[in-house]
Amino acid sequence: MTRAETDYQALLDAVAADIAPLRDQGRVADYIPALAAIPPEKFGMALVTTTGQVYRTGDAGERFSIQSISKLFTLLMAFRLRGDALWQRVGREPSGEPFNSLIQLELERGIPRNPFINAGALVVTDILCSHYAHTERAILDFLRQLSGSATINTNDRIARSEAQHGFRNAAAANLIKSFNNLQSPVDTVLRTYFAQCAVEMCCVEVAEATLALARGGVGLGTETPLLTASEAKRINAILLTCGTYDAAGDVAYRVGLPAKSGVGGGIVAVMPGEFTVCVWSPGLDANGNSLAGVAALESLTTRLGRSIF
Amino acid sequence: MTRAETDYQALLDAVAADIAPLRDQGRVADYIPALAAIPPEKFGMALVTTTGQVYRTGDAGERFSIQSISKLFTLLMAFRLRGDALWQRVGREPSGEPFNSLIQLELERGIPRNPFINAGALVVTDILCSHYAHTERAILDFLRQLSGSATINTNDRIARSEAQHGFRNAAAANLIKSFNNLQSPVDTVLRTYFAQCAVEMCCVEVAEATLALARGGVGLGTETPLLTASEAKRINAILLTCGTYDAAGDVAYRVGLPAKSGVGGGIVAVMPGEFTVCVWSPGLDANGNSLAGVAALESLTTRLGRSIF
Amino acid sequence: MTRAETDYQALLDAVAADIAPLRDQGRVADYIPALAAIPPEKFGMALVTTTGQVYRTGDAGERFSIQSISKLFTLLMAFRLRGDALWQRVGREPSGEPFNSLIQLELERGIPRNPFINAGALVVTDILCSHYAHTERAILDFLRQLSGSATINTNDRIARSEAQHGFRNAAAANLIKSFNNLQSPVDTVLRTYFAQCAVEMCCVEVAEATLALARGGVGLGTETPLLTASEAKRINAILLTCGTYDAAGDVAYRVGLPAKSGVGGGIVAVMPGEFTVCVWSPGLDANGNSLAGVAALESLTTRLGRSIF
Amino acid sequence: MTRAETDYQALLDAVAADIAPLRDQGRVADYIPALAAIPPEKFGMALVTTTGQVYRTGDAGERFSIQSISKLFTLLMAFRLRGDALWQRVGREPSGEPFNSLIQLELERGIPRNPFINAGALVVTDILCSHYAHTERAILDFLRQLSGSATINTNDRIARSEAQHGFRNAAAANLIKSFNNLQSPVDTVLRTYFAQCAVEMCCVEVAEATLALARGGVGLGTETPLLTASEAKRINAILLTCGTYDAAGDVAYRVGLPAKSGVGGGIVAVMPGEFTVCVWSPGLDANGNSLAGVAALESLTTRLGRSIF
Repeated sequence: MTRAETDYQALLDAVAADIAPLRDQGRVADYIPALAAIPPEKFGMALVTTTGQVYRTGDAGERFSIQSISKLFTLLMAFRLRGDALWQRVGREPSGEPFNSLIQLELERGIPRNPFINAGALVVTDILCSHYAHTERAILDFLRQLSGSATINTNDRIARSEAQHGFRNAAAANLIKSFNNLQSPVDTVLRTYFAQCAVEMCCVEVAEATLALARGGVGLGTETPLLTASEAKRINAILLTCGTYDAAGDVAYRVGLPAKSGVGGGIVAVMPGEFTVCVWSPGLDANGNSLAGVAALESLTTRLGRSIF
Repeated sequence: MTRAETDYQALLDAVAADIAPLRDQGRVADYIPALAAIPPEKFGMALVTTTGQVYRTGDAGERFSIQSISKLFTLLMAFRLRGDALWQRVGREPSGEPFNSLIQLELERGIPRNPFINAGALVVTDILCSHYAHTERAILDFLRQLSGSATINTNDRIARSEAQHGFRNAAAANLIKSFNNLQSPVDTVLRTYFAQCAVEMCCVEVAEATLALARGGVGLGTETPLLTASEAKRINAILLTCGTYDAAGDVAYRVGLPAKSGVGGGIVAVMPGEFTVCVWSPGLDANGNSLAGVAALESLTTRLGRSIF
Repeated sequence: MTRAETDYQALLDAVAADIAPLRDQGRVADYIPALAAIPPEKFGMALVTTTGQVYRTGDAGERFSIQSISKLFTLLMAFRLRGDALWQRVGREPSGEPFNSLIQLELERGIPRNPFINAGALVVTDILCSHYAHTERAILDFLRQLSGSATINTNDRIARSEAQHGFRNAAAANLIKSFNNLQSPVDTVLRTYFAQCAVEMCCVEVAEATLALARGGVGLGTETPLLTASEAKRINAILLTCGTYDAAGDVAYRVGLPAKSGVGGGIVAVMPGEFTVCVWSPGLDANGNSLAGVAALESLTTRLGRSIF
Repeated sequence: MTRAETDYQALLDAVAADIAPLRDQGRVADYIPALAAIPPEKFGMALVTTTGQVYRTGDAGERFSIQSISKLFTLLMAFRLRGDALWQRVGREPSGEPFNSLIQLELERGIPRNPFINAGALVVTDILCSHYAHTERAILDFLRQLSGSATINTNDRIARSEAQHGFRNAAAANLIKSFNNLQSPVDTVLRTYFAQCAVEMCCVEVAEATLALARGGVGLGTETPLLTASEAKRINAILLTCGTYDAAGDVAYRVGLPAKSGVGGGIVAVMPGEFTVCVWSPGLDANGNSLAGVAALESLTTRLGRSIF
């Protein structure tokens, strides 16, 4: 099927049918009560083409907790501020460790492996905290602008709950600080980080907010590019090698698209030059990625017969 | 520059000019005398399009020790034999560790992270040893067939030298054996592995031998596909996430192509649907990849304005 | 020289002469300004026999920051409260890692290796925080009672300075908390821990406070034993295998006595049935133990011709 | 009970009664068939005083595979050859890792933590291989001389079986060799090591062979000391901190004597100035030490009311 022939709506519908048996197979994140309460059978998917056509299926309009998908957006903000100087403070190599391991962070002396493990995202957030007077507000503004949706917000109850259970993130932040790779106070960085993770968006909003990565760095209907074409390719490269925790290799193998996942059950993926797609299903696999979500993306590229490879 | 407009010969010439200052910057592998003797200023590059057009620059016709590039070819052989059952014995995740580390292998109980670290390649070679009566011969036959070059051979002096200094590989093989993930005798697997690493090919031969990965699994001028289109995409995915040791993220970021490197200074990369390219320059960077070679591939995709992302 | 023949004063004087050339060789702990300001040439030593005879040399009466020596005293308090149930929350094996490493703590899921690494001492302090309404006061009371010196106190400036630079300890405490092995709030445990480390005592006071370990668990001039004879032996065993950070094997080999050191430059050692001895010299060796202090203890047992071995 | 009052025979009998319920509780080493066939209910114990009095109970006269107890004897041989220069090639710190872990060996670049983990014993054996023309013979001669028993021998069937299953030791030896800390060929060192582990001795012979460590370095009825008094103390220190794999802290805590164990179920312990004792019971605990053996030694020192602490 060539790109011109693709009936994206039929494609989404077929994918939704493919993964229907998986919708209650995963395990909903339960480390905080607010996330554990999400019905596991939820499933939504939205695909936005580079020309701005929106296709959707299921619960694509229902907002969910974006969690680690926020790391992509804060990375975009920090990369625009710092450019390649950013990589002095955080690496861009796959971690080879579960996403919240402190071992590698200690062995590599406080320079997190990449911006998508928690430690790396804390450094990225610290960069934003050094630049903005009101960082949480700046992040929300950026998300609202990218997605064109002014009502996007943080779920304060979830943010507070994350803070109350976030001892591993606090350990990571303190360890990074001990290596002098955090400039703001630990508490400030943690509070901002928990707030960004607790932002709620729907599949359509996430796919639209990511569209510049499929359009050579230029958002739809904007004059000023978000990134250069080369920068957009580079962010996509990091998404592919590091975007899905310890399963980046598996997702590259099965799906073949740059993608970022969150423990809220969302995954956003980019087909450069063609579309972005966001899927949401709360049940997670052993790696912390949406079980039905990864399967849906695999079904999508298999049915398309196309991926970046 | 669109694909139709590309003047590949001018491109290679421009790339060669770009990296000229780097040709003696790296450090030639010196763990065995035979490799240490290679003149560091050597540089060759060959690009083969999916229609079989061959472009070349510099020492593209001079054979070099392919070393770890052999791991791509033995993976193709084993994947054809075992299909996805292969992944029960070796993973497909980036390692996050230097390419010869035993730590991860021990923690993960003898299942190597991916087929491109030494431990994983040993398991792949063991699979071939279980299937072929004369494995070294079978590997050579496969390389000769893929590249259409009947004179490709192993440099026995290098193979012997590798064996004499290969204590880390012997440690890895014994450790894997202790976890029951090696079927043939340790010595058999090691001998075969050292022989495959000591094969000598030139840039043109390597690029031609890899062409099926740019052509949806089908080699040029052949009736039977080497792999299905889906399988070819999957091998490309593994190349991208795991093909360049501990620098896979960096190479994805800077180059944006699936690639496999060797300490002999060769790197082969795939632009699906368009071309394969092999570069050779013996000086290595800190990660064990050809310093000028990675720079040449970066120059290539930057000048092209295209990568898989 | 048999015990009866020992002239302890002459012994201490000879030891002091032996180590005189080493008094400015080590490196004073400089992670907080208040410690860095201590003159490196300070040297004191006090030996208290099981009958209560006190011998001293040099700056034996000058108070110094006891730092990790406090871990011995909090262990005694927690062991009296919990007995062998204590070992469900902290191990008693040598760590094989530098004293502030988080790696082992993560691999062993929040159960610190032993009570003398920082992580283990935090768990011990947490046990005290669960039991006492005013833990810092309870610790001071215990130290004053053991040493018979009512003026022992915490140096608040050092405690605050520790807190301001204590990111690694905060990382450890949060990591332990994430594994549910800390009951009190992280901040409470850290504040108490920094306070106990900032207690100041002199060599005579430390040696006297430890005397029960050389007297089968019974302090001098007291009716109620601190510990049973068996318990005292067990604490001595932990001191020997774990008391001097990553150098326990070296100290056992060279000195041959159970000992506990601190980065303030103090070391206390126990010769069961005979004496306790405390040495203080602020310059540290690469393992964080007093360089002249370890040498002094080695000289002491070599001259005595006796150790526990 | 003071030393003069001790009725050692009654003591051994009481200990044997104490541990009777444990005699079939452990798990016999089964990594090679020859060891797996030993009846688990075997139990023997021999105590030899510094004056040469021998006390025994149970199967104290039956030979068993000494396995890692051999590491003590080869250490004595190498220490006599090299003195403190030995410590340039092997450390003397507790390992904090299971006894056959390669992780630490790789992180510490081929210098094993101590002579009692397998890697360290391989380096010790390599030192002997560099010095003796017939190392296996030299080791047997040393054991026969120390114990006064000319019939001590290697069980060749066990040695061969160890070699056939010794992939982890082969991995360790190759890894050490890769760091240039092995001088003889890997195969020579491994063969010698497997032979020394397969030596068979009875409890009485092991206790007698170790007696010099309880007698200040001087064997019974000999003119030339094996070691100086200081050296004997130092070997005892290493036994205490490193002699029982990853349970050195636990054994120090419960037993309080320097000791060396083997997976054949033997443990030898030293009470300096008083006696050596060897216990044998084939069932092992989770750390690879004789379960009833450790319990017997704990009972012994508890009943005595004496240990080195």
